[in-house]
Amino acid sequence: MNSSIINSRVKALRIWMEEEKVDAFIVPTIDPHNSEYTPDHWKAREWLTGFSGSAGTAVVTAGGRAALWTDSRYFLQAEAQLDGTPFDLMKDGLPETPDVAAWLAAQLPEGGVVGYYGEMMTQELLTSLTEGLDKAKYSSASTSSDPFRFIWTDRPELPSSPLAIMPDDMAGATAPDKLRRIFEAGRAECPEAKYVMLNDLSEIAWALNLRGNDIEYNPLFVSYLIVGERRATLFTDEKRLTPEVKEYLHAAGVSTARYKGWKNFVEDTSSEALFVFPDTMNLKVTEQCRDSGVPYRFVPWHVPEMRAVKTAAEQAGFREAMERDGVALVKFLRWLDGAVKAGGQTEMSIDERLTALRAEQAGFCGLSFATIAGYGPHGAIVHYEADAESDAPLRAEGLLLLDSGAQFDCGTTDITRTIALGPVSDEERRVYTLVLKGHIALSKCRFPDGTTGIQLDLAARYAMWQAGYDFGHGTGHGVGHRLCVHEGPHQIRKNVRGCTLVPFHAGMVVTDEPGIYVAGRFGVRIENTLLTVASGQTDFGSFLSFEPLTLCPIDLRPVDFDLITPEERQWLNDYHATVRQRLLPRLDDAADREWLEAATKAI
Amino acid sequence: MNSSIINSRVKALRIWMEEEKVDAFIVPTIDPHNSEYTPDHWKAREWLTGFSGSAGTAVVTAGGRAALWTDSRYFLQAEAQLDGTPFDLMKDGLPETPDVAAWLAAQLPEGGVVGYYGEMMTQELLTSLTEGLDKAKYSSASTSSDPFRFIWTDRPELPSSPLAIMPDDMAGATAPDKLRRIFEAGRAECPEAKYVMLNDLSEIAWALNLRGNDIEYNPLFVSYLIVGERRATLFTDEKRLTPEVKEYLHAAGVSTARYKGWKNFVEDTSSEALFVFPDTMNLKVTEQCRDSGVPYRFVPWHVPEMRAVKTAAEQAGFREAMERDGVALVKFLRWLDGAVKAGGQTEMSIDERLTALRAEQAGFCGLSFATIAGYGPHGAIVHYEADAESDAPLRAEGLLLLDSGAQFDCGTTDITRTIALGPVSDEERRVYTLVLKGHIALSKCRFPDGTTGIQLDLAARYAMWQAGYDFGHGTGHGVGHRLCVHEGPHQIRKNVRGCTLVPFHAGMVVTDEPGIYVAGRFGVRIENTLLTVASGQTDFGSFLSFEPLTLCPIDLRPVDFDLITPEERQWLNDYHATVRQRLLPRLDDAADREWLEAATKAI
Repeated sequence: MNSSIINSRVKALRIWMEEEKVDAFIVPTIDPHNSEYTPDHWKAREWLTGFSGSAGTAVVTAGGRAALWTDSRYFLQAEAQLDGTPFDLMKDGLPETPDVAAWLAAQLPEGGVVGYYGEMMTQELLTSLTEGLDKAKYSSASTSSDPFRFIWTDRPELPSSPLAIMPDDMAGATAPDKLRRIFEAGRAECPEAKYVMLNDLSEIAWALNLRGNDIEYNPLFVSYLIVGERRATLFTDEKRLTPEVKEYLHAAGVSTARYKGWKNFVEDTSSEALFVFPDTMNLKVTEQCRDSGVPYRFVPWHVPEMRAVKTAAEQAGFREAMERDGVALVKFLRWLDGAVKAGGQTEMSIDERLTALRAEQAGFCGLSFATIAGYGPHGAIVHYEADAESDAPLRAEGLLLLDSGAQFDCGTTDITRTIALGPVSDEERRVYTLVLKGHIALSKCRFPDGTTGIQLDLAARYAMWQAGYDFGHGTGHGVGHRLCVHEGPHQIRKNVRGCTLVPFHAGMVVTDEPGIYVAGRFGVRIENTLLTVASGQTDFGSFLSFEPLTLCPIDLRPVDFDLITPEERQWLNDYHATVRQRLLPRLDDAADREWLEAATKAI
Repeated sequence: MNSSIINSRVKALRIWMEEEKVDAFIVPTIDPHNSEYTPDHWKAREWLTGFSGSAGTAVVTAGGRAALWTDSRYFLQAEAQLDGTPFDLMKDGLPETPDVAAWLAAQLPEGGVVGYYGEMMTQELLTSLTEGLDKAKYSSASTSSDPFRFIWTDRPELPSSPLAIMPDDMAGATAPDKLRRIFEAGRAECPEAKYVMLNDLSEIAWALNLRGNDIEYNPLFVSYLIVGERRATLFTDEKRLTPEVKEYLHAAGVSTARYKGWKNFVEDTSSEALFVFPDTMNLKVTEQCRDSGVPYRFVPWHVPEMRAVKTAAEQAGFREAMERDGVALVKFLRWLDGAVKAGGQTEMSIDERLTALRAEQAGFCGLSFATIAGYGPHGAIVHYEADAESDAPLRAEGLLLLDSGAQFDCGTTDITRTIALGPVSDEERRVYTLVLKGHIALSKCRFPDGTTGIQLDLAARYAMWQAGYDFGHGTGHGVGHRLCVHEGPHQIRKNVRGCTLVPFHAGMVVTDEPGIYVAGRFGVRIENTLLTVASGQTDFGSFLSFEPLTLCPIDLRPVDFDLITPEERQWLNDYHATVRQRLLPRLDDAADREWLEAATKAI
């Protein structure tokens, strides 16, 4: 990005700020729906600063200073991308870095007003950004309009992908049933609630059994949903509503209106009708309620935990999706052995091949995230994504880390295998085996109903800790059903957060993905997606265990069997027997079948 | 307790309440020092209600109602003990049970005043008891005096045991050094702090390197300590101060005054001198500050974490104490084998024998808690303490659970062994082995510096969970150095609390005590006290591991070796080799040596 372009954008923002009478303006990395991935339309922070990292907060003052806060993952990238722009890089997490409030206090005149646009702000974020500001000296205020509507002249339109109806027998629960449960959960938290309002796009897609394609890898559609006791209203670009979808929604008791029509809905609502929503609702909604004299309340939000427990139909869909994915993976892995020996393959070329094989499967809708194919030292870069510059040729030696997933009509997959392309070093073998031991220990853990992710995390780390290894990322995340590959509310990880205190119950899906990353040399991660299943009642309570949903051989060539216990060997044999039984009937090619038989042979 | 006595005590309290003009009075189970065990002087709740359980809150209204809240551990006992008294039993934790505030709201006249005595209250407790009360209708107020001073005519005096000086080379840090650190920690939290005030008796004993004997099993002395920048003042019954102790304190820069003299100290302090203390400080102290116009602040409190990291001298003291304790335990266990076969032994008789053997050891100061000797079904009662009525005769079969500990001049011990008195059932063998596996997994865990108790807990439970067993108590607690056997701030347990989020560092002591309790049949617990030690630096960080401090053979007769892995076998052999090497030279009797050789033989 040319820094003079950034300068002119900041200048344009300052002109708008003068009209709006704000002394500073905050541009956080957020969208009105709190999405993990957002359409380009809402990438205002990136447009304004030129910094393309996934996390960062920009602040521009009228007085001439501008700054961007981001975390250590992005220090180098931000330094390069902000060079020559008006933005000072603020390195989050370093002791000498002032936070936004402290920096603002040093810039603002007394009585200064800090502006933000309500659609791009939540209460929690606003509090965290401004709670250090002396309220007697400064104020914060939502601006009357979105500055980027005026200054971002070539701003991309909001997406409006067509919608697909997920059949009830694939969802396992109808939209009216889910809407009723959502309304009841809201009313249970606040008996006066008249309307329950949703802004999270994956919650809306789940609730209505509809899927879109507005955001790459995420089958979502930009919308709001307001759920009343008997009827609901979906606010989304009406151009995408085919007669079939309209009829479906009508039958489900769901009216439709244009995307911004929620404002009119609020305005037209009687002032006795109380709205409830999660504390992640954007502030434009609370402002609209206030301006229209409509009462509202943030309430504890239960949609994520409803969605987390998969119905029997969703579980069946996951299993079917895993079989299709497994077939593609087996074909890929069989091909890979020969292709690497033949030479000429790279990280990107094999990604293409794998995607093509997945695309041959029935009901393929795309990938569930950008494939990570990291060979050798690239395997140690946790969020590596090969590009033309980095794309490494594969040689018949060492380890390839391959983390990938697909969207099928019936479910979402997420799998990591680390593959020995040829001989591996003793260190690679040892590390691979330690990761495998962690993967197995978590996968075979039986535990009381209600156990949380913080409690389970040790299973994946115990063996590697004994050897002095560790990893910095989470051990497991939820997976949506034909939805986002990262889905809350639960996670397995080593630190206490809301997500690691969510109790596990039967029907919840979670990944099991320990890893070890030896910087500059190689990385290992082994990931299956697991289903939490009932595992009997004893005098000591109800127990749960995990069923591996993912169906793909785990490479045994890099295993140091001296470190493997008889129980771990048994687990490997059992898992491989399941993979073989489930995938063999779906493989037409004798060579694929032969490869699978060999790869899953009992040891 | 005769219920008419309780009636007359409640009547006396009501007469006092009338004079004090309070409509209700709260008598919680607490003392001014937040002690786990309190002298009889402060057992006002028990005296007033006749209920002797360790937890409960009594409330008496002027209007004629009285109630006692306690938890499920005590429902049966409280029901029996409250029978015929004015106290209604309020079963805490049941959905139909009103909390104190709701109950009060139903009893009190509008404008009613809820009284409490500040010495027997903390801000946190008061908030939890009254936050549900409508502040517009009711008020809470500290009473001007302690009612039990007037109505409890035969109230026990406060104890005044003599003090022993712990030599600096046994403590590893001098009192002036600790006082300086305490003051600096207080000032770091509040730069204006002039005085740091302590009320926790174990913190005061630790800070001054003094030990008392005011409370059974707890070498404490009733006192307050006010620490200034250069001098400190100890407030305690001056009768117990021998010339030697006075001289010691004088040399350490510590003045002394009578126990209640802290009030005069506060009164006489200039109003610019700010006091800081932990939020567990009793409210009498804050009231005195307020009445004297002296500013104060509750600050984050760091004394427990200072105390938790044991000095090299304290670690050496623990090791010496464990050797003495181990000698007594070996003599006991050798004797037990024969004594049970000979017949005539009971839970209480063997407890006496064990205590006598401990008392023969140098520096023995008493037990660190009441021995739990539970034979057969009694082993399944987690806090069992045999009495004349329950005392069970021991037969040459089944399992005896024996949890005990001692205070030596150089350290504190806490150990549980479960002993096969003869043949054991298959179930007993299986359960014993599962507990042992959990004990070993936690004991041999290596983990990154800063790992917390909630993260480590799974190690102790993984094996038993696989088999559908679990236990309800904590997995590990801190142990004081010649101090209380339960010492904060850290614990290992399955639920998230402040204590399970404390990071582990080298030098911290913690118990490892998983168990399984099969109601009506038997219980198994295996407990060692562990020292956290440095375990090397890798590319992935600093690692820690545990050194078992406890030195006593683990009974191998009830082990199912089919369930034991080679690594677990190795751990047992290594542990037993250490026990043998450390204890053998201290055993004079050839029969004891022979027994130890056999009990610790490699398997």
